Amino acid sequence: MKDSKIPELLEQGNPAEDPKKFRRTLGQFATGVTAITTATPEGPVGVTANSFSSLSLDPPLVLWSIARTSRSFEAFRNSSHFAVSILAENQIDVSQKLSSSSEDKFSDLEWNAGIGGSPIIAGALATIECVTETIHDGGDHIILVGRVLHHRRFAGKPLLYAQGQYGVVDEHPAFRAADSIVTPTEHGQSLEEQPLTTLLYLAHHYSSAAFDRHRREENISLAQSRILSELKRHPRLSKQALTDRVYLTEEKVADALAQLSERSHVETDSAGLLSLTESGHALARSIRRRVAAYEAEQFAGIPVERLAITRDVLIRFIDGLANPNETDHAA
Amino acid sequence: MKDSKIPELLEQGNPAEDPKKFRRTLGQFATGVTAITTATPEGPVGVTANSFSSLSLDPPLVLWSIARTSRSFEAFRNSSHFAVSILAENQIDVSQKLSSSSEDKFSDLEWNAGIGGSPIIAGALATIECVTETIHDGGDHIILVGRVLHHRRFAGKPLLYAQGQYGVVDEHPAFRAADSIVTPTEHGQSLEEQPLTTLLYLAHHYSSAAFDRHRREENISLAQSRILSELKRHPRLSKQALTDRVYLTEEKVADALAQLSERSHVETDSAGLLSLTESGHALARSIRRRVAAYEAEQFAGIPVERLAITRDVLIRFIDGLANPNETDHAA
Repeated sequence: MKDSKIPELLEQGNPAEDPKKFRRTLGQFATGVTAITTATPEGPVGVTANSFSSLSLDPPLVLWSIARTSRSFEAFRNSSHFAVSILAENQIDVSQKLSSSSEDKFSDLEWNAGIGGSPIIAGALATIECVTETIHDGGDHIILVGRVLHHRRFAGKPLLYAQGQYGVVDEHPAFRAADSIVTPTEHGQSLEEQPLTTLLYLAHHYSSAAFDRHRREENISLAQSRILSELKRHPRLSKQALTDRVYLTEEKVADALAQLSERSHVETDSAGLLSLTESGHALARSIRRRVAAYEAEQFAGIPVERLAITRDVLIRFIDGLANPNETDHAA
Repeated sequence: MKDSKIPELLEQGNPAEDPKKFRRTLGQFATGVTAITTATPEGPVGVTANSFSSLSLDPPLVLWSIARTSRSFEAFRNSSHFAVSILAENQIDVSQKLSSSSEDKFSDLEWNAGIGGSPIIAGALATIECVTETIHDGGDHIILVGRVLHHRRFAGKPLLYAQGQYGVVDEHPAFRAADSIVTPTEHGQSLEEQPLTTLLYLAHHYSSAAFDRHRREENISLAQSRILSELKRHPRLSKQALTDRVYLTEEKVADALAQLSERSHVETDSAGLLSLTESGHALARSIRRRVAAYEAEQFAGIPVERLAITRDVLIRFIDGLANPNETDHAA
């Protein structure tokens, strides 16, 4: 990683004066995503939470917090039990569903009732079933401490939420040097000695970091660029359909839409459907052109036929890995 | 992602009966890494914590928890202030230093005193300065709630801790489809239409997932394989030097060493330095061979000269991105 010693200060302040700014600072702390659920006489209740934390091993306790303004607040405050499902990387849909304002969050989800009736989400990376032990005051939230009665761990990788968007975990670059499982050369530090899979890792990692810098310089948020792109392809989307397509939270989409509308890039028709304006289309095209130019620049100087071979090798490699059952495992 | 609908259940149980198992389940929840610090009359005190969580916007509150057995427990319980530094992805060394049992954690760190004298770590992704608001009981931990007086957000990406190891955030695969900034083709879902950077991303992502499956089938933990590899290259390491080299926590290294010693793969000499035994060397060689065979299998069927060109293109690409200042930015 080529990080300068002192990173650029983006913003600072007293959080009591500007809560939005403070929320962005808090977003620098990456977390997994959990579905937290309980049973009520009116049926199952659930929310998406990233405030989950382990608390104690002996006794086994975990904690999380819920906003007093949440529609599920009373259900959790009054419930004797709750269940935590730590979501796997392929469960964005579960996270989106449980964080939506939909009335019936559970009809499309696969789940079964755990201890105390709390829904356990199928396909989760871990499930933690609790009896509510203590509730503490926490400003505009309350802290719920649960005593863990049963836990399960499944194979897979976690879904992440970091800096306002979903993500997945990747190995740390430092590991590639430390872990001979992926760098079987004895003394190899030079690129020439690295296995192809490590080159793929490094190429992706550097390219991704370069792209982040580029996006920052473009001075348009990820949410805004995703919305522009989706509305360009699919005019007349409802707010809900748009939110589903861009994989960002309702709140994030609402913020970005407000900014885009203010600058007259997006308009809402009488049916409440969203489309790009003339200037919105122009902005989307301009972003696209700049990205294409940037990508071309990254590979400048490498002969076209060698790039074509590289593309072809990568496609065969991806095809092979994406469809492992079609090949023989003869190793 | 090709994930089967129902992931494999690895373990389950009552956490009161087997805390280690429970800890592994809790490790499925990915988190950022924070350095939490305070000032005492005896000097600065700090720990690494991943129990940090935002709590409330109005009033601005955050929380974290510390073990009653921590050597820094009394310092934090008695302190009027603390500071949270959310670590950036290039700060593994800070995390390792503050989580070590070293007597002088701050001498090698770059920091300055914030509100109430709490050390602020230089190079962090965010800093959050607090006055201690409330302390709640939490089993073998206590919960510290801080009222935030000042916050700063810096450019960069977060360090992660997930499933027992450090990591970095990568874009979610779903984004590659949703975000035209990286997929400038209008309707392109097929690999042939994707830009090379997306192919790199997909190739790395699939290869990494395949490798995880392979490692699981090998039935040897990541910590064990890293220790074997390091001791193979560098015999006679102290436990501390080994911990620094494998980028895993002291606890994790101690657990893995205990297992390797029990199976007579690692021995400790009279000076307390660690080396591989004959059988440890044999195991390290066997892992290495199997990895090499696995890597060869992934690229089977692709002509050698095309693989060589791909390697060459990737190396030029990585070199260009790793040394951006040597090229002209003429876009």
